Formats: sequence, structure tokens, C-alpha cells
Amino acid sequence: MTPDERRRLARVLSRLADASVSEVLRLPQSGDGHCRRIGVTGPPGAGKSTLISRLARRRLTGEGDLAILVIDPTSPISGGAILGDRIRMEELENEERIYIRSLASRESRDGLADNLPDILAALQSFGFSEVLIETVGAGQVAHAIRALVDTLLLVLHPGAGDQIQAMKSGILELADIYVIAKADQPGAKELVAELRSVRKERSVAGAGWRPPIVLSSHGEDESMQKLAAEIDRHQAWTTVSERWEDARVLWRAQHVESLLSRRVGEVLRALPRDALKQPIDELYRAVLRELADPGAM
Amino acid sequence: MTPDERRRLARVLSRLADASVSEVLRLPQSGDGHCRRIGVTGPPGAGKSTLISRLARRRLTGEGDLAILVIDPTSPISGGAILGDRIRMEELENEERIYIRSLASRESRDGLADNLPDILAALQSFGFSEVLIETVGAGQVAHAIRALVDTLLLVLHPGAGDQIQAMKSGILELADIYVIAKADQPGAKELVAELRSVRKERSVAGAGWRPPIVLSSHGEDESMQKLAAEIDRHQAWTTVSERWEDARVLWRAQHVESLLSRRVGEVLRALPRDALKQPIDELYRAVLRELADPGAM
Repeated sequence: MTPDERRRLARVLSRLADASVSEVLRLPQSGDGHCRRIGVTGPPGAGKSTLISRLARRRLTGEGDLAILVIDPTSPISGGAILGDRIRMEELENEERIYIRSLASRESRDGLADNLPDILAALQSFGFSEVLIETVGAGQVAHAIRALVDTLLLVLHPGAGDQIQAMKSGILELADIYVIAKADQPGAKELVAELRSVRKERSVAGAGWRPPIVLSSHGEDESMQKLAAEIDRHQAWTTVSERWEDARVLWRAQHVESLLSRRVGEVLRALPRDALKQPIDELYRAVLRELADPGAM
Repeated sequence: MTPDERRRLARVLSRLADASVSEVLRLPQSGDGHCRRIGVTGPPGAGKSTLISRLARRRLTGEGDLAILVIDPTSPISGGAILGDRIRMEELENEERIYIRSLASRESRDGLADNLPDILAALQSFGFSEVLIETVGAGQVAHAIRALVDTLLLVLHPGAGDQIQAMKSGILELADIYVIAKADQPGAKELVAELRSVRKERSVAGAGWRPPIVLSSHGEDESMQKLAAEIDRHQAWTTVSERWEDARVLWRAQHVESLLSRRVGEVLRALPRDALKQPIDELYRAVLRELADPGAM
């Protein structure tokens, strides 16, 4: 990616941050993309950012460029990103084939950025071959990111046994690859055993993919090689099992859902307060009329 | 509430579980309700269900009936409610003026039930004067429930110091009343001190309401009296500060948003798979045309 393209992409992404739905719809669109999407989630402090910094260069094996999106939670009251300081990816900033962008999760109810589909579509139109998406937390946000990526990594660290307990409600079942970061710390063996038992229950359910467990500790490079290979193996499996195609159809539907739901919000916010006092069915029809107004589209 | 009304309500709520958006819009609607909504949230095991059982009778001081909604998380993979066993409210089931209903959070991305606005509107049309809504967890779901209630209780228990750390991202700032359940257990004093320091930071932000801290332990009734009084005091404050009215306007907007977003989902699911392959802007317009189709409304 040339410095010029990089600047142009930065401008597009900045414009998307405040764009109305009709502005988003007027942006140029790419055709069928072959951009892989890899999600990285896990509890705060698990070591996700460090892992991504190390993994990113490993993933530059092919031709294409790599984008990294870091989604920061924001407090709805303070409005500010609170975990900005944890981003330690400076050493990647000078890498010509890597583009890094941090996003606030804004007012989204699922913990992701509400315009994330726009951003992913923009990255696709700039020809990235792969996007790594980092999210914090392992609650609702894990379900939301699951629906947006091909391959989902769950990053845990030793001593996170309690976290596994708290996570039992399906989060572990969402991941395609488990990564144990800081694996040289005490408790790694127990964590592997716990994950194995989860995996066993899961394979009974017949998901067809047995999530590997990759141990990673700082200072050694072999685990990154292994992790990159497991990602490739999973990507290959999604293609064979037609999940790749299914995911892309789902993403388009999600993108349109996201745009329409934001457009409904725009319409509702523009209505006079008194209009919101009419019966629900009438209000529903009033919003529909506004939505269909070709002048506003 | 007569046994007849109770059965009729149960039928309406069951119908709502699978209703299409157009069916929801055809249901009879009530006028301006004076139904209070009180949310009860907190981490698993904090003692929310026990608290609600004890609080519910206390809240029956006025004329009206009281509804209790218990929202259970569901695993998106198993599809089943996993915490159903924690509901220990049987002793209330025989109380004529109390109606209890358990809801699965279904596929909602915010951890609540996606048709919760329909259910709340139905309860309102049946003339309940108050609804207590129990939700599990203190992540995104706390933000979602905050937007749906007048008064939000956050239930914690001693020894939950780590939980407070994990919760710092704004959840504590959402609550109107802090309740320390199991306050006879060690650590209650430390928890009070922690909550006081959070409250201090918050009052600097000038929210205008200073959340009281209510200590409750099993077997004594004074704390329930105090909690009920604090709820009344907060309800009175919301009325004076015009939050009561603002909340009801917001709820109507949210309800219409929820209906439209579900309708968009219905339309997208009904489209042939090939239609999902057209460019995003064309797909957007195709969905809009379906939405506006008066035959389908």
C-alpha cells in the first residue's frame, strides 16, 4: 500500500465516522471480495494486543496487505476510550503492508462499533487480503464478532480459570482456535485441560471443526508460526465446508440491516417530540413513510 | 388481577413469543401508561432473585398489580435457558396481585429479549402499576436495561471487589440504587467504601441524584422497607426532573426501532439467497420496497 493510498484510506475511514446512511450508500463499492476476516477476542489483560502485533507480520506471507482494527470499549457516560493506552503496536506502524486503525465502540449495544460493516466494506474495497479485528471482553461482544468473521481466536491466559467459569454460557463454543497467551506462567497446563474438556463436549455436538489449542509465550516465535498455520487450516476448512460463501451472504444481509437500523434512528431523531406520542402502529407507519422518501435517500 | 385476566395475559404473552411484526402491530394498545419500570441487575450469584422475591410484596403498597420479568441468558448454540434453576420465586406464585414471567434472551445481541418492548407494552395495557425486570450480568446488558427502566438497582454481594474492578467501564454509573445483598457476610464494609468512592467521582460529574447504598441480609425486613422507600424517592425525583416523561418518549422510539429492525430481519430472511448478492445499495432499496409494501403490513 503506497503512502498515497494510505492517506486516501484514512480519509475515507474518517468520513465514515460521521457519515449519514445516505452518504454511506453513495460511497464506491467493491465487487466480491476475497478478504479474510479474523477476529481476536478475550478478557481484558489476556494479551490480545501483544499477540496481534506478533501474529501480524507472520500473516504477511502472501501478496496482499493486512489491516488491523482495534475496537475499544467506551463508557457511555464519559464517552471516551478507556483502554487506549493498552495499544502497543507502534512497531508495526512503519510496516508498509500493515494498516492499523483504532475504533471506539460508540453507542453500539453489542460492544462493537455500529458502523463496523461500513469500515469492513471500505477495507475490502481497498483490496486488503486480510483483516484482524481485536475486541475486548468475552460477553455479548463475542457473539457479535463471531457473526462478522471467518475465523475467531479466543485468547486466554493462565490463571483465568474463573474467567472460564464466567464464560461458560456459550462463548467458548464460539471460538475456532484457542490461544493461551503468557503460557510460561503457572496454570497453563490446567487451562489446557479445561479447554480440552470444553472441546470434548463441543465435538459431541458435532460442529465438524476441532478447535486447536495454541500455547504462546513471549520471546519465542514457533507458536506464531503454528498459530498462523492453524488460521490457514481453518480458512481452508471454511472454504471446503461452504462456510466461506455463507458468511459473505450473511455479512451483506447484516450490512443492510445495520444501515437500515441506523437510518431508522436518523428518522426518529429528526421527528418532533410530539410525533413520538402517537400510538405505536401510527408511529411505525410514519417512520416507514420517511424511510421510503426518495428525496431523503 | 382475576384468574381470568391472568390466563388472558398468559395467552397474549405466549402469542408475542412467535408473533411477526405485523401481528404485534395489530394487538390492542393501551394509552399513556403510568406503569413504573424498575430494573434489577448484577453479576450471577449476587442474590437478585431472592431480593426480588422479598422486595415484591413490599412494593404492593398501592392499588395496582405488580409484574416480575426474569430474563434468562441463553446459549446461542444450545438454545436453552441455563439459569432457569435459579428462579426461586415459587412462594410468590400464589399472590393474586403478582404476575411472574420468565423470558429467554433469545437471539438478542444486547442480552435482553428482543421482543421485550412488546412484552412491556402488553403488561402496560393490562394495567400493571409496576414491573420489576431482572437481568443477569453487568456488561452490555446493563446498558440495555438502563434505557428501558425508570429506576435501576445494581445488586452486589460482599467479596465482589474484583467484580467492581471488572465493572468500572461505566456500569456502576448507570445504577440509581446500589444494593448489597448478603450484607452479613465478610467484606460488606469494604464494598460500601468502594461504592462510596465511585459515588463521589460520579457526583463530581453532576448527575443530580446521589445513589443510596442499601444493605440487605436474609431474615431481616427493615432493609426491604428502606429499599422500597428509596425506590419511591427515586421515582419521585424522576418525575420532578422530567426524566419520567423523557423516558416514556424514548421508550416509544425504542419500541418502533425494535419493530422495524425485526421487520427488516423478516424481509431479509424471506429474500432468495441470490438477491443477497446484489450491491449493498441495491439490496438496501429492495428491502425498503418490501418494507413499504402495504400488503405485507
